[in-house]
Amino acid sequence: MDIISPAIRRSDVASACSRLLRTKRLRRFCGGTPMRSWSRATTNIPKTEANKVPEVQLFEERSLKLAWYAGWPDGGHNYSYPHQWLRFHCQCAECRQPFSNQRILDPSKIPGNITLLDAFIEGDCVVLEWTDNHKGRINLKWLVENHLHKLEKEDKSELSLKKSHSIGMSVIDYKELEKSEYVRHLYEAILKEGHIKVHGLPTTPGTVKKFVQDVFNLPVQRTIYGEVFDVMSTDKPINVAYSNAELKPHMDLVYYESPPGLQLLHCLKFDESVQGGESILIDGFDVAEKMRYKFPAEFNVLCSTPVTFEKIHYEREWPVHMRYRRPHIVINDKREITGFFWAPQFEGPFFASEGNVERYYDAYRKLASLIDASPTKKSFLMRPGDLIIFNNRTWLHGRNAFTVSEGVRHLQGCYVNIDEFQSQAQVTLFGNKQRIQFPHVGNQSF
Amino acid sequence: MDIISPAIRRSDVASACSRLLRTKRLRRFCGGTPMRSWSRATTNIPKTEANKVPEVQLFEERSLKLAWYAGWPDGGHNYSYPHQWLRFHCQCAECRQPFSNQRILDPSKIPGNITLLDAFIEGDCVVLEWTDNHKGRINLKWLVENHLHKLEKEDKSELSLKKSHSIGMSVIDYKELEKSEYVRHLYEAILKEGHIKVHGLPTTPGTVKKFVQDVFNLPVQRTIYGEVFDVMSTDKPINVAYSNAELKPHMDLVYYESPPGLQLLHCLKFDESVQGGESILIDGFDVAEKMRYKFPAEFNVLCSTPVTFEKIHYEREWPVHMRYRRPHIVINDKREITGFFWAPQFEGPFFASEGNVERYYDAYRKLASLIDASPTKKSFLMRPGDLIIFNNRTWLHGRNAFTVSEGVRHLQGCYVNIDEFQSQAQVTLFGNKQRIQFPHVGNQSF
Repeated sequence: MDIISPAIRRSDVASACSRLLRTKRLRRFCGGTPMRSWSRATTNIPKTEANKVPEVQLFEERSLKLAWYAGWPDGGHNYSYPHQWLRFHCQCAECRQPFSNQRILDPSKIPGNITLLDAFIEGDCVVLEWTDNHKGRINLKWLVENHLHKLEKEDKSELSLKKSHSIGMSVIDYKELEKSEYVRHLYEAILKEGHIKVHGLPTTPGTVKKFVQDVFNLPVQRTIYGEVFDVMSTDKPINVAYSNAELKPHMDLVYYESPPGLQLLHCLKFDESVQGGESILIDGFDVAEKMRYKFPAEFNVLCSTPVTFEKIHYEREWPVHMRYRRPHIVINDKREITGFFWAPQFEGPFFASEGNVERYYDAYRKLASLIDASPTKKSFLMRPGDLIIFNNRTWLHGRNAFTVSEGVRHLQGCYVNIDEFQSQAQVTLFGNKQRIQFPHVGNQSF
Repeated sequence: MDIISPAIRRSDVASACSRLLRTKRLRRFCGGTPMRSWSRATTNIPKTEANKVPEVQLFEERSLKLAWYAGWPDGGHNYSYPHQWLRFHCQCAECRQPFSNQRILDPSKIPGNITLLDAFIEGDCVVLEWTDNHKGRINLKWLVENHLHKLEKEDKSELSLKKSHSIGMSVIDYKELEKSEYVRHLYEAILKEGHIKVHGLPTTPGTVKKFVQDVFNLPVQRTIYGEVFDVMSTDKPINVAYSNAELKPHMDLVYYESPPGLQLLHCLKFDESVQGGESILIDGFDVAEKMRYKFPAEFNVLCSTPVTFEKIHYEREWPVHMRYRRPHIVINDKREITGFFWAPQFEGPFFASEGNVERYYDAYRKLASLIDASPTKKSFLMRPGDLIIFNNRTWLHGRNAFTVSEGVRHLQGCYVNIDEFQSQAQVTLFGNKQRIQFPHVGNQSF
């Protein structure tokens, strides 16, 4: 049988196979009574590094316990796997198509009362025999990495990337990005700090798109503004960014279900005669956390009140009439913040019951004040050849008003899809060897 | 002052101006006591079509009431506009940048105790004088179309598009799409029924992308499968779709924050010798509603339990490691279903507390059975030149297994972003004249 678990490459399987030689057949479950106590079982396990096969213990009526030696990626613990869970995650070739790794088993065909009859280790898998006559298998490495409580544990893992706060900004030289360790640094800074500055790019138009393709190995995220957009003052701006007015802190394109992930802004021209025009960055997730701490009731209002974001503009080459309703703050089942949406410039009509109007505007005003006063605010001038990259889903950006007189301020920008960025960060930083718990990137994933 | 409300084009403003000639200055609010009762006010309004200026009634301490004549788009009613709401929605050139229509007022600067001092009609606007010395204005048409309770009312409006169920499928001939009324029909069928079939396309590769550009005037939505993907049986499928196996009903790419909106599948080749391979469509939103009706407790489990969808595949040109956690069913504040995610093929490890595992799989199994038994199921054979378009966010698709022997089954597909589709539908069907309440398109907008 050709087994490729979704978490493991062929080469990994080969090396795992050579490591794990013992085949163990274990005790059959009889009548719901534990055959022996767990404490005795664990005590008996010789904890040598060489002995890496997990101990299979089938003495629970509805779940299988596996004791993992410390040598395993998340080992040194015993984890319980409910029978139902194991059956649904079967990785045999009948249940999961070998090359594509996609599940082909029909979940509705699994009986509700399915029970495990037997389990034993064979090679790098645990083989599972079921009351519906199915004989399946699950890769051991996958099992230890994806136990039920993985998400709670992984937060404490050394391998998880933590959000970090720095007063300054990470800066990197464009030429350094030829070396892979600097590319890794680029990813880490964006994941942990939310932004990074790159110096010394050529000032040729189109460089920003080429940067995404060459450095991130990703396509740019196309939007109603195209693939690459120019930010410079014009007479009839189709966007307030394309004028010389102050641009209050905001996120871009929040009227999309999935607004742009990374935003890249590349400075092509910034004449000395231009007065003002400093770029501004503010940590939106940090502000939202402060909101929860300082104004818990108002925080809840902003989590539960949908507001309208819209872009309705017919006098443009591609007329658009976009409207999306969502709360400003999105939290998951653990009440962690997973999404934040702030763009006063693009707020449309607020629909609500009359009783909720003042409650909402009161909370809104408090959030706006926290943004204004945020200590995370960074203000800096872009110079020709500078590139700023930031996560548009967790950070707000803006700019001070400027006077152009005779000079020109010209930035060119583009976006990267948030899910594709996260995928590429995992591939680049860790590959398939270790799954990493990233800080929330703002894509509303739980 | 150059006022362009976000809901109105210059030409609309001009015609509105010519219609609305009367300027009315009304009673000043004194000390919180209503100056007269609402009933008397409404009784006094002459309800002739010619007299279209709304009656401004400033007799409430915290809100402004406007009585709209039946000639207005949503008229024949009186609506109450809270002061705070009016101030935040100000459309004067100081608060909203004329050409881009974006809001430039700083919401944190609006005092919490702001009160309206005076209000009167001038041209096509209501002019509002505030205690913070601001003098603003809001377009009348925008006001009547965007009153607080608009969303509740609009459901009953004749202009809203209702979801409809038909036993068959709408079919249209490719050549007919040269006429704009057939393009309108195309949009309406997708919005109301979720799918449409187009006959008689050329069988040249690339036609499907050209169709999106020519007929929808939209770019295709690029994903990790590129802009256009080929569905035909191969030896080492990077996706189960690229084999000849049965493809159980599912949605595509649910490991993206915003999975593809429309899916287009264009049949290039389907040899007579191919046995099986029927395409299948099932209404996912209908199944989810049935789930709520038949199994309300399990419905709630599926709304509140996040599951993992993933695509982890290193052995491809663009290695991907995508993982997204979300519940199967997403509801809004009114408990309407706004999102549905079903793709057993792409389910990753399920993380939960042990107590929730059986509860979840029980609900999951019930949903899977409802999908299997859904009366909305449509099964049909694609023939060369056929194009099927369906909403990948509300409908599931699949196909029966097939045997190729010597023949070939070759489909080419692409996607359209859900928000861009909805925008284009509004622009094409109604323009900016009337805002339409669409059926939920599955993009999780409230």
